[in-house]
Amino acid sequence: MMLRFRYALALAALGWLAGCASPQPRGTGDLGLVIERAAGRVQLVNTTTRSAIAVIAGLGDLSHASVVYSRDGRYGYVFGRDGGLTKIDLLLARIDKRIMQSGNSIGGAISQDGRLVVAANYEPGGVRVFDAQTLELLADIPAVSASGRMSKVVGLADAPGQRFVYSLFDTDEIWIADLTEPRAPKLQKFTDIGRAPYDGLVTPDGRYYLAGLFGEDGVALIDLWQPEKGARKVLRDYGRGSEKLPVYKMPHLRGWAVANGHAYLPAIGRNEVLVVDLATWTERARISVHGQPVFVMARPDGRQVWVNFAFPNNSAVQVIDTLRNQVVKALEPGRAVLHLEFTPRGEAVWVSARDDHRVVVYDTKTFEALAKVEADSPSGIFFTSRALRIGF
Amino acid sequence: MMLRFRYALALAALGWLAGCASPQPRGTGDLGLVIERAAGRVQLVNTTTRSAIAVIAGLGDLSHASVVYSRDGRYGYVFGRDGGLTKIDLLLARIDKRIMQSGNSIGGAISQDGRLVVAANYEPGGVRVFDAQTLELLADIPAVSASGRMSKVVGLADAPGQRFVYSLFDTDEIWIADLTEPRAPKLQKFTDIGRAPYDGLVTPDGRYYLAGLFGEDGVALIDLWQPEKGARKVLRDYGRGSEKLPVYKMPHLRGWAVANGHAYLPAIGRNEVLVVDLATWTERARISVHGQPVFVMARPDGRQVWVNFAFPNNSAVQVIDTLRNQVVKALEPGRAVLHLEFTPRGEAVWVSARDDHRVVVYDTKTFEALAKVEADSPSGIFFTSRALRIGF
Repeated sequence: MMLRFRYALALAALGWLAGCASPQPRGTGDLGLVIERAAGRVQLVNTTTRSAIAVIAGLGDLSHASVVYSRDGRYGYVFGRDGGLTKIDLLLARIDKRIMQSGNSIGGAISQDGRLVVAANYEPGGVRVFDAQTLELLADIPAVSASGRMSKVVGLADAPGQRFVYSLFDTDEIWIADLTEPRAPKLQKFTDIGRAPYDGLVTPDGRYYLAGLFGEDGVALIDLWQPEKGARKVLRDYGRGSEKLPVYKMPHLRGWAVANGHAYLPAIGRNEVLVVDLATWTERARISVHGQPVFVMARPDGRQVWVNFAFPNNSAVQVIDTLRNQVVKALEPGRAVLHLEFTPRGEAVWVSARDDHRVVVYDTKTFEALAKVEADSPSGIFFTSRALRIGF
Repeated sequence: MMLRFRYALALAALGWLAGCASPQPRGTGDLGLVIERAAGRVQLVNTTTRSAIAVIAGLGDLSHASVVYSRDGRYGYVFGRDGGLTKIDLLLARIDKRIMQSGNSIGGAISQDGRLVVAANYEPGGVRVFDAQTLELLADIPAVSASGRMSKVVGLADAPGQRFVYSLFDTDEIWIADLTEPRAPKLQKFTDIGRAPYDGLVTPDGRYYLAGLFGEDGVALIDLWQPEKGARKVLRDYGRGSEKLPVYKMPHLRGWAVANGHAYLPAIGRNEVLVVDLATWTERARISVHGQPVFVMARPDGRQVWVNFAFPNNSAVQVIDTLRNQVVKALEPGRAVLHLEFTPRGEAVWVSARDDHRVVVYDTKTFEALAKVEADSPSGIFFTSRALRIGF
């Protein structure tokens, strides 16, 4: 009887443990993931306590990895360079599902309604569409030109109306895929948009798609409100120019900041940030900065633009005041600053310093370092607030 | 022994139940609250399943009630007309804390860092600052002019830098309170800003504070990036004008939409929506609509502006295409349409029809009614995505 009693207690305890595997309830609005690229892991972080909560391992090759989020903020979708697509449950701090969706991927996006996750691939080139809940493949859209040539896909971004826009690097095209019916994508193709588009973005309001060109100067632009007008070329001087200066790292177009009616762009090969009028798409000013800019990111209220730099000037971050269009602050978060992400309302910014293995959190008003979070070669930082935005 | 065995099992079962009171983990990014004004209740809703999850009662007088959210999205703060301030736990679907903070309140806001909840009061006039976690009173800022006159406070909005901006209806002032040190607020006061400010807003980028004037035509404007420049008057024709048409309901200034470089404003006493250039603050166009507009709300991508109307034309909603500045659709969600709220990325909009006791969810692309949620005299609809925005 004593044995039975103990057995009952043990069973009950087990039941208790099993039944309570679900953690304490918590909101998801202040969570995020930091990529630990070398280790194939992500750190789950909290922007309220400014600390790491958990580490989730087993994500494969995370160089150039990016993350999008489910509309409830619970799940993060990590696109790895090796074609891995990993769905992470932030509340249980574990991998929910993981598939190898291609041989070589360059990022992804999530549909406006949150039901579709789409990956852009190098190898084989094209776009694949997955059910966001199950990661079941719903559509495979190869990137093949009218003449039958295959292409790498770059610059994938979501747009309103269940659409995705992306560029074909090898065939000089931009495609819009309408995935209202996911298994029957409707494609709209723009050809001869400019030579070798290498990255793209959708403006924060979802209206314009822009593709940077590797093969010539200028930027290809499509007005998604009036796609019937076709693609046109703007900013014809934007690029490496005739001098062909050494370019240490092609800047990320996703880094384009829109603030105060202007776009702030990383110059290519020059230590400058360009200021462009959004109404006319013409250059208005150039701001001298510390190195070749990589990410040029606006604080959510647009008053500040933060810039990081390519090697060898990559241990610094500079802050531009958009009212005066001047650098007002320089900071040294650590060696090899790779990325930065603002909290949703902009009171703080998280900056990753890969070679010093830390993420530094700054107060954007006082520039005080509020916290340092240890991380193994951190690169990208992605907060759940991205779930609510267009063009990511 | 048998008794002891049973007792142990019962205890274990109790422990199991107690330990598992926490619900299944779920994200908070797709939740919201709908005010049931007559019943003093709120409905907890889910924008993914487009349904109501729970009802939370006991909130007092909810006419003109509004809601702000904690930065993690777990807690909603409901400001009632009777001065009640109720903190609701969305994950446990229950009241977490409730205080009577004044005799008569007109709304509230939450600080950029999410630590402070601030209420604007009619009776006694002034602003009260609370700890967002405990609802402990941290500061009480009476609204008293230099000559000693007390005032109702209206148009309270948060601004970057832990600031709050609000208007003093009875003394023609706008105050900026810097709550970096919550127990020692720093006040900046602007006097003679125009007669009887009755409502105010901060533009979505957090830069401008605008106050509508009841006592004269025009709008008072402060550039929060350059407050040293003082308050100035813009849109001098905005108001009831010389004809003094009957105004069935003063429109909500929070309804001002910013889209495509323009602000869309409800005309006062006229069946028109005004289009204003944001760079010059001058009127560019007028769009004829079905009735006197109350809320003029932009879809998050700015391509559409949705308008509801004052009695007697209040069973309709009209949709303006901001590219053509024309009404492109009219809908009839039900009698007495009081409010509307877009999902964060704008694929759907929720519209409350008070006298038909329902909230209708529309697809903003097809205008199809996707769902109807039953509710008792619903008024305001507030999604957790507001936690991430400036100026709410």
